Amino acid sequence: MAINTLSSGLNTIWVVLTAAMIILMEGGFALLEAGFVRHKNNVNIIMKVFVDITIGTLCFYVIGFGFMYGHNFLGIIGTNGFMMLGNLTHLDLPISLDTFWLFQAAFVIAVISIVSGAVAERINFRAYILFAILMTALIYPIAGHWVWGGGWLGQLGMMDFAGSAVIHALGGFSALAAAIFIGPRKGKFTPQGTSSIALPSNLPLASVGAFLLWFGWFGFNAGSTLSATDARIGHIAIVTMLSAASGGATTLLYTLFRYNRSDAGAVINGSLAGLVGITAGCAFVSDPFAILIGAISGLLMIFATNLLESNQIDDPVGAFPVHAASGVWGTIAVGLFSSDGGLLTDGHWHLLGVQLLGLIVLCTWGFVVTWLGLSVIKCWIPVRSTEEEEEIGLDVSYHGAIAAYHEREFIEYEENDYPIRKDNH
Amino acid sequence: MAINTLSSGLNTIWVVLTAAMIILMEGGFALLEAGFVRHKNNVNIIMKVFVDITIGTLCFYVIGFGFMYGHNFLGIIGTNGFMMLGNLTHLDLPISLDTFWLFQAAFVIAVISIVSGAVAERINFRAYILFAILMTALIYPIAGHWVWGGGWLGQLGMMDFAGSAVIHALGGFSALAAAIFIGPRKGKFTPQGTSSIALPSNLPLASVGAFLLWFGWFGFNAGSTLSATDARIGHIAIVTMLSAASGGATTLLYTLFRYNRSDAGAVINGSLAGLVGITAGCAFVSDPFAILIGAISGLLMIFATNLLESNQIDDPVGAFPVHAASGVWGTIAVGLFSSDGGLLTDGHWHLLGVQLLGLIVLCTWGFVVTWLGLSVIKCWIPVRSTEEEEEIGLDVSYHGAIAAYHEREFIEYEENDYPIRKDNH
Amino acid sequence: MAINTLSSGLNTIWVVLTAAMIILMEGGFALLEAGFVRHKNNVNIIMKVFVDITIGTLCFYVIGFGFMYGHNFLGIIGTNGFMMLGNLTHLDLPISLDTFWLFQAAFVIAVISIVSGAVAERINFRAYILFAILMTALIYPIAGHWVWGGGWLGQLGMMDFAGSAVIHALGGFSALAAAIFIGPRKGKFTPQGTSSIALPSNLPLASVGAFLLWFGWFGFNAGSTLSATDARIGHIAIVTMLSAASGGATTLLYTLFRYNRSDAGAVINGSLAGLVGITAGCAFVSDPFAILIGAISGLLMIFATNLLESNQIDDPVGAFPVHAASGVWGTIAVGLFSSDGGLLTDGHWHLLGVQLLGLIVLCTWGFVVTWLGLSVIKCWIPVRSTEEEEEIGLDVSYHGAIAAYHEREFIEYEENDYPIRKDNH
Repeated sequence: MAINTLSSGLNTIWVVLTAAMIILMEGGFALLEAGFVRHKNNVNIIMKVFVDITIGTLCFYVIGFGFMYGHNFLGIIGTNGFMMLGNLTHLDLPISLDTFWLFQAAFVIAVISIVSGAVAERINFRAYILFAILMTALIYPIAGHWVWGGGWLGQLGMMDFAGSAVIHALGGFSALAAAIFIGPRKGKFTPQGTSSIALPSNLPLASVGAFLLWFGWFGFNAGSTLSATDARIGHIAIVTMLSAASGGATTLLYTLFRYNRSDAGAVINGSLAGLVGITAGCAFVSDPFAILIGAISGLLMIFATNLLESNQIDDPVGAFPVHAASGVWGTIAVGLFSSDGGLLTDGHWHLLGVQLLGLIVLCTWGFVVTWLGLSVIKCWIPVRSTEEEEEIGLDVSYHGAIAAYHEREFIEYEENDYPIRKDNH
Repeated sequence: MAINTLSSGLNTIWVVLTAAMIILMEGGFALLEAGFVRHKNNVNIIMKVFVDITIGTLCFYVIGFGFMYGHNFLGIIGTNGFMMLGNLTHLDLPISLDTFWLFQAAFVIAVISIVSGAVAERINFRAYILFAILMTALIYPIAGHWVWGGGWLGQLGMMDFAGSAVIHALGGFSALAAAIFIGPRKGKFTPQGTSSIALPSNLPLASVGAFLLWFGWFGFNAGSTLSATDARIGHIAIVTMLSAASGGATTLLYTLFRYNRSDAGAVINGSLAGLVGITAGCAFVSDPFAILIGAISGLLMIFATNLLESNQIDDPVGAFPVHAASGVWGTIAVGLFSSDGGLLTDGHWHLLGVQLLGLIVLCTWGFVVTWLGLSVIKCWIPVRSTEEEEEIGLDVSYHGAIAAYHEREFIEYEENDYPIRKDNH
Repeated sequence: MAINTLSSGLNTIWVVLTAAMIILMEGGFALLEAGFVRHKNNVNIIMKVFVDITIGTLCFYVIGFGFMYGHNFLGIIGTNGFMMLGNLTHLDLPISLDTFWLFQAAFVIAVISIVSGAVAERINFRAYILFAILMTALIYPIAGHWVWGGGWLGQLGMMDFAGSAVIHALGGFSALAAAIFIGPRKGKFTPQGTSSIALPSNLPLASVGAFLLWFGWFGFNAGSTLSATDARIGHIAIVTMLSAASGGATTLLYTLFRYNRSDAGAVINGSLAGLVGITAGCAFVSDPFAILIGAISGLLMIFATNLLESNQIDDPVGAFPVHAASGVWGTIAVGLFSSDGGLLTDGHWHLLGVQLLGLIVLCTWGFVVTWLGLSVIKCWIPVRSTEEEEEIGLDVSYHGAIAAYHEREFIEYEENDYPIRKDNH
């Protein structure tokens, strides 16, 4: 057997296995978010993730991939590769195009799943479908082209190994725009300016999600090498672990000493913040900096949560605090701590400047195009659930589920009818 | 280090890792089915999956593997390899026999887990154990021999890459026979011909199952290459993803526009139907055909669900619609769309004919032998739970669980006794 | 590409992927334990696992790893490698030091998670944090050095492939000491000597945990080769599967025939006992012995459960029966059945003697140092929850969670305050 065949097979199974791990992260997102929202909206948020993974995948196949990885046009957009057709040799891949596509598809459905959390419990389901199409076909692919597809930010030298900026900061600012656009859940804030909280309805379920996300993140970061013989894989994996541990430990101890309780939601989100924070720099920073990045990510998550709360912005699962705050910080941290070009490690300002420029561009893009997109959708159908739908809960309103969990026996329905009740419209 | 050692190591870890992913699918089956059935039977259905994975594994080790992969006798049955003893060099494996066995064991426990869903909420637990032995020792291994073990269907040229026919159609028709044999759950259909529905008792739990199944399916399909240097791995993985996405998207949109609700159970089962449908052809069909196969699988799943309902056949988790309907369709689709020999792509009728013949044989075998097997078991012990057991719920009747979920504190029991209540006999 | 690069890449992805699988086992531990304990303590036990995976990881990084794998001092302790600094070439690794560290970190957090189950529902959360530091920085690393780090037990020839003794027996005896030290849950045993039982509050959740553990165990055992070209990988995987199946089948059938019910908790723990039992010998014993080891592990688990119960020792999730009983048995089984040096297979007493010596040392170490450690902690802060905390439940007492699962809507809190209630102190 030729050594090239072996090498190619090795890279292929590495990327296929890590892509599968990232796709499992959709389960992580779904369950985490379901556990965090109120009982009556558990199924709806899982169904939104099913929108991401089904419709989102198909949109990325037909449209998004071409915009992101097609032949570069003026550094701004890809122009072929739709349905993977056309000449894509410019990608110069160490793996087959099919394998590469799968890995990228796993990424795009992660981005849209970030947004799904911020609009939980009050977005119209059909409007969400339209927005998911927009995100997976246009918003993320075009921005992704700038950094990873041969576009202008990548040409300037922006470094974002596995997507603290492209995926998490972009997704997090898109989530922020959507949360503000749609407005808070009914009852979350009073006219007098006080706010109330919605405690997680099922923390064990949210924990299942967190563990699946943590597991998948090893695929997310280490798989981004796209090559099994990349000597950085071990290092990427260890700093991913250290930053996650540091983010979780920081929020665990912070809430313990500050509030005399280790807040469960904060510990879970702190660990995830640590994972988000290290995603840009996992291939570029050393172990101690990874621990520092994770710790600051955890604290920023708490800070950003309080900031949203005091500004009466309602982000039910903490999508902005976890993904945008830590994503921004992680991208800046590369400029500070990168072994090659970091300000504090190597004495150069250039990388930090490029990282900041890239962040401004990506976050603005994510926020503005989301706002515009939702405005356009709103011309056509309502973006927000009706008061009645929100009151009843989106599970019953949109998915024909009596309740996510119940102990009922059989329920009558007319013969040959479909098992969806008509009375709760 | 010799290149052969490397190659062998590469293949081994590929197959071991994918086998582990398939074994995790048992968790997927258990939780999906538990979430779909009524509250009082949640634990029982998980315990049935434990029967599959424990007793089923041992039966396949002692008996089934030999019938399936032993030395071929007249194209009908294997004759050695029981407990992996004897000369098995005819298998000509690219991996060690141990590794191969593990992968095959992961398959057999998937087959029996398909049946467990169809007989949910009313089968006698001891009868189920006996049937599981029958399935893993005889029914599946013998049929598997015909297609994959060197038997007559494989000799005729039947193409079933990872088992739409051998695993899913066979398992699905066995499930159908068992569901009819045992009869509907008490209260599901009235004598007047009306039927009622049992809404899923825990959709988030079912979703955990669905995500685990989706993840494991990459192992199921791509791992079936048994070789990490098989150039088709990337392609197999991408069409698996596309078909699943297509199946889920189709049922999501179909139920949304037809019933004004995206039915959660239908979306989950639609995604799984897409996965089942592509299992035969994942190595043989192109991307657009994968999307088509998934879409039709999703619609067939809904159609088959309604068909069972109108025929008063009770299949609580949709085992037949998901596995048999999509499995049959996926096997036919190979005959239609295979890049090599497909009717619509290559103009040949032969492959389609062989696929149809194979399906008829496998589905008939699955149905008839299951019926016979249950008839024999019935001579010895009741196959169906008593009315009282069914009424109380199988968790309490068979597993000493007060309730799958409860908030009770301590419960008294006599000293040195075992924690199983005696009063609910 | 050089063949050495390929070989190194192959080993790296093998160990990184299996390490990720072991880290996912933390999710398994958390959910299994949460499902087994009472409803009011579901979140607390998950948070304890978060302590393990966050603080435990960091302690092992800063301190533990050096004691375990640093330069050997008199066979007793490692002396460098803290924060992975210093010359560690004596390890002579087939993979990068980073990759090796990640795999070992996955092990240490498994050990401490074993203990978390035994002290469930009544340990003071801050005391648990201190104990977790002790375990991950000192107790496990030092004992691990003796067997795996170049220490005296390894020099004597003790064989413990993936840790039945070092991880499970040590962890299990530490768990026993902690359970005795802290005392039983209030209400578990009466002064008259009768005991009551706490039925699992969420068996489906526990099952999710069990399936994740089963999946991860393939990484645990097969990954311990640290080399993808180790010819034993396939064999390790198959005996892992057979022993788990055998352990589960044995308890399933035993409880069925002895008590007329297949007890769900016993079946789950029986499977896990089978996995623990084979962990030491997976590379050394043949298939039939693996089945035997699993079967005896399952029975020992039941026997040890009853033994604890009759001695009024309260181990809520069965940490001792699963990990210590089966771990001890599995280590002895190597001395009996090892293909190379086993008493019954090879006629030599030496190996069995070394295994017994090692077990006595490790179990004594685990028990005694845990007891001393908790005694020291007790001088500083209470080790046990107050009666009121225990009564309310540790979720509310320590983690600001109203209830693990609830259907409540919004809850008031003062503006800018943190979402933790102050009234339940």
